[in-house]
Amino acid sequence: MTEVATVRRSRITPEREAELYAAVIELLREVGYDALTMDAVAARTKSSKATLYRQWGGKAELVVKALRHQKPVNGDIDTGSLRGDFHAMARRDTDCEMEQHSALMRGLATATHENPDLLRAFRELIIEPEIEELDTLLQRAVDRGEIRADNPAKDYVLHMLIGAFAVRNIIDQQPPTQDFLTSYMDAVILPALGA
Amino acid sequence: MTEVATVRRSRITPEREAELYAAVIELLREVGYDALTMDAVAARTKSSKATLYRQWGGKAELVVKALRHQKPVNGDIDTGSLRGDFHAMARRDTDCEMEQHSALMRGLATATHENPDLLRAFRELIIEPEIEELDTLLQRAVDRGEIRADNPAKDYVLHMLIGAFAVRNIIDQQPPTQDFLTSYMDAVILPALGA
Repeated sequence: MTEVATVRRSRITPEREAELYAAVIELLREVGYDALTMDAVAARTKSSKATLYRQWGGKAELVVKALRHQKPVNGDIDTGSLRGDFHAMARRDTDCEMEQHSALMRGLATATHENPDLLRAFRELIIEPEIEELDTLLQRAVDRGEIRADNPAKDYVLHMLIGAFAVRNIIDQQPPTQDFLTSYMDAVILPALGA
Repeated sequence: MTEVATVRRSRITPEREAELYAAVIELLREVGYDALTMDAVAARTKSSKATLYRQWGGKAELVVKALRHQKPVNGDIDTGSLRGDFHAMARRDTDCEMEQHSALMRGLATATHENPDLLRAFRELIIEPEIEELDTLLQRAVDRGEIRADNPAKDYVLHMLIGAFAVRNIIDQQPPTQDFLTSYMDAVILPALGA
């Protein structure tokens, strides 16, 4: 059985996988998470539902992997200073990408409250990699002597960052941008970290 | 016309208003903003739809006023220090109230993205009073010499605060609490403000 599964799994090429993810993101934008069905994904991508379930297990994992694929965590930011690293993070996506991404994330984050599977996938594939990336970046800053290892704000960097990203729209009636994030990092995150 | 409207308006007593708001919050919890109808509010509260429209104008204003009624802004926090004021804010609601409130807020904030009327009411009746309250509190801290008038973090206090409140659940898999907010204020907001 395992062998068969492996052979079947390998039939999906990286190009085909990217195509599938793009279709899932498209559907997600059109109808939102709750109304998105595996039937619709199968129809739009001309694949069988059996293939989708075999490859991804279910809707939650498929959707979150599609989102993750669209915006991979780059573990490779290492500019030599904490400020440089944060600024590189703020400028990783263009303003347009950020606006689209924040709309998707918002919808998905809301859907997690009623879908335990989605919450699990969202944490495993989105939140936890972000936490790991931040930890690496902060540990290097501690090693360089830029921030103290026991600074209590270290545990809240993700709250500050994702929080500002999430509420920017409702507070300021405009989407998060590179300039907004950079200025927020300089005004809030770096001073809170004592950097 | 104005006189008639005034006479009619005065027929709703504060007790009746509180009853109506409680029913709206109940419905909001049960079905969410999108599925909530004025018909359902009228049926549940044994009022006529005409009365509801005359008094509140529409669903968006009714829902946001119900939420505002449930959690009024207390402009009266004034402990004599910025840290004291923030801690008083963090302890204004019990943990249980905060959990219920954050679920409602989350649902409503999401619904604002597709309902311009709701966004307008949400900003006017929830965001703007919060901004005003914070401004007063920060201005007193400036006057006492606790923080500098030109500290750039002053413009981001609401982003830090509402942001942490909004993402607490998805990052830590637990709702915001008094202790979480107090510790976040001490670790992040006060140091960022240079207090």
